[in-house]
Amino acid sequence: MSGDHKADYDVLGIGNAIVDVLAQVDDDFLARQGLVKGAMQLIDEVAAHDLYAAMGPSIEASGGSAANTIAGVASFGCRAAFMGKVRNDELGEVFAHDIRATGVHFDTPAATEGPTTARCLVLVTPDGERTMNTWLGASQNLGPDDVEADLVKASAITYLEGYLWDPPHAKEAFKKAAAIATQAGRKVALTLSDAFCVDRHRESFLELIRGPVDILFANEAEIKSLYQTRTFNDALHAVRADCALAVLTRSEAGSVIVEGEDVHVIGAHPVEKVVDATGAGDLFAAGFLAGLAQGRAVPDCARLGAIAASEIIQQMGARAIRPFHEVAAENGFHPV
Amino acid sequence: MSGDHKADYDVLGIGNAIVDVLAQVDDDFLARQGLVKGAMQLIDEVAAHDLYAAMGPSIEASGGSAANTIAGVASFGCRAAFMGKVRNDELGEVFAHDIRATGVHFDTPAATEGPTTARCLVLVTPDGERTMNTWLGASQNLGPDDVEADLVKASAITYLEGYLWDPPHAKEAFKKAAAIATQAGRKVALTLSDAFCVDRHRESFLELIRGPVDILFANEAEIKSLYQTRTFNDALHAVRADCALAVLTRSEAGSVIVEGEDVHVIGAHPVEKVVDATGAGDLFAAGFLAGLAQGRAVPDCARLGAIAASEIIQQMGARAIRPFHEVAAENGFHPV
Repeated sequence: MSGDHKADYDVLGIGNAIVDVLAQVDDDFLARQGLVKGAMQLIDEVAAHDLYAAMGPSIEASGGSAANTIAGVASFGCRAAFMGKVRNDELGEVFAHDIRATGVHFDTPAATEGPTTARCLVLVTPDGERTMNTWLGASQNLGPDDVEADLVKASAITYLEGYLWDPPHAKEAFKKAAAIATQAGRKVALTLSDAFCVDRHRESFLELIRGPVDILFANEAEIKSLYQTRTFNDALHAVRADCALAVLTRSEAGSVIVEGEDVHVIGAHPVEKVVDATGAGDLFAAGFLAGLAQGRAVPDCARLGAIAASEIIQQMGARAIRPFHEVAAENGFHPV
Repeated sequence: MSGDHKADYDVLGIGNAIVDVLAQVDDDFLARQGLVKGAMQLIDEVAAHDLYAAMGPSIEASGGSAANTIAGVASFGCRAAFMGKVRNDELGEVFAHDIRATGVHFDTPAATEGPTTARCLVLVTPDGERTMNTWLGASQNLGPDDVEADLVKASAITYLEGYLWDPPHAKEAFKKAAAIATQAGRKVALTLSDAFCVDRHRESFLELIRGPVDILFANEAEIKSLYQTRTFNDALHAVRADCALAVLTRSEAGSVIVEGEDVHVIGAHPVEKVVDATGAGDLFAAGFLAGLAQGRAVPDCARLGAIAASEIIQQMGARAIRPFHEVAAENGFHPV
């Protein structure tokens, strides 16, 4: 099978399968808990239990970085699939329901033993910023055996989250999927996930970007952390040499897309009020990937990313309440 | 112990312990599923499974009618307790966390076997109306043994939901609690819950209202169903003879409070846009009960109810994101 072969799926995502538990807190709460605002930290089950007990009333909503992106891609009307590991428990059922209900193909078998479905305790401050505390649970058990070669070969782009580099088995699944995609002439995309995650796995990520990765997603903090540069511009020059297409987001300063010699600077989409920043980067990636799947020019892909990011930060949680194809159409992007 | 004895709790609620699963749907979806818009219907586990599979992506949030009211009472800064039955599963943990996190005393032991924690599939249409489909699960196992006599005696008002009349054991728990409260010289409050629920249990409800119930909460459809009257006014005259204090809500037409010979008509609180009507009645009751606990005059209790109802229908779910004591203060109701 080669990349010229028509793909069954526009994008296959592989990532941690997580249910978010969202609560509103004030800045003092973060300080008392010793948390770094805006970051994602991994916590163990005991710490998750303690933090949950300290949190106020919460809502639960499906999450997971790549899973949010893939649900977004499907919500734009594209064909999407996901691989990730839940446990056969109530929150696992919630995760599977929500991703399938957006039209995503998802059939990774749920674990029947071991830790419960992963959850991320998301603390949203009044400024809309989110601070994430993840107990990886069952998603740690995603392994190479869960990677269906046929599904990877049948997907135009395989999209991988950097967070997968944290659990050891998942890393093997990641490598296997990337190798299959490359060999089948398909594209491999990577999101760097989080500046601290980059710090944990810098050398591996650089190897991937110089190797199988065709499309890189990163925000300003992540790309600067990757190349350990002081300025965004220095990081931009570094990534140009390493990757064919780099999609760099800068929050309200918009995005910069580096495509060989071309650099596209695209403004952010207007936002009335940031309610909850959870999913901004994930949904930017969704819009961009949907644009690529629809054969749009790179600047338009970035505009779709900005529209999706703007929509998601004006609601609680990282899964869209309104279908993105409607939001896109309202902004002049009609089905192609 | 008598009613003159200082109470440890302002309000104790007893009700079904439910987690809501909320999704946005269009009117066609309700039609295809054969659902009566705006109503609550009881469904079995198989039907719950089928309906969930047909629903779009959802969010989970603690619910339950009396539980919503009690969480609201606590959010107003009053002392509140709750009795209700969950299973020792993930959604049971969610329910217990959320109600305790609002400051409510809750220690009904979770069932260790039998059906899972109850869930209500809430379908929200674009007009903000909600249509509820409840699988009672573990909450059916609340029984008289779960009613702690000391807690009832220590509560100024015991608040019971009509929905408790559906599961047979819970009905016994309801009767036991009402008898203990009456004997201890405390007040008993009842909400009629739903017009269809009234239809199922009309004679029992009339007996209760003519017997132990001191404060009745009902909306227009419920009170008309109870007395099988054509007009609201006829129902109002009927309830005046049966109950010392009747709190009747009429959505955007405000509320009518019947207190012996006095009738207070209070306007609704302004609403910009109805996002999700889930919890409007529950939170009206919360504001009213909080007002009583704070020793306010009846019209002010109704105003607090209107404020809480207005706040809750402008967000998804029936648990307040902002503490009600803040919302109340913004509207000129300061701590007493």
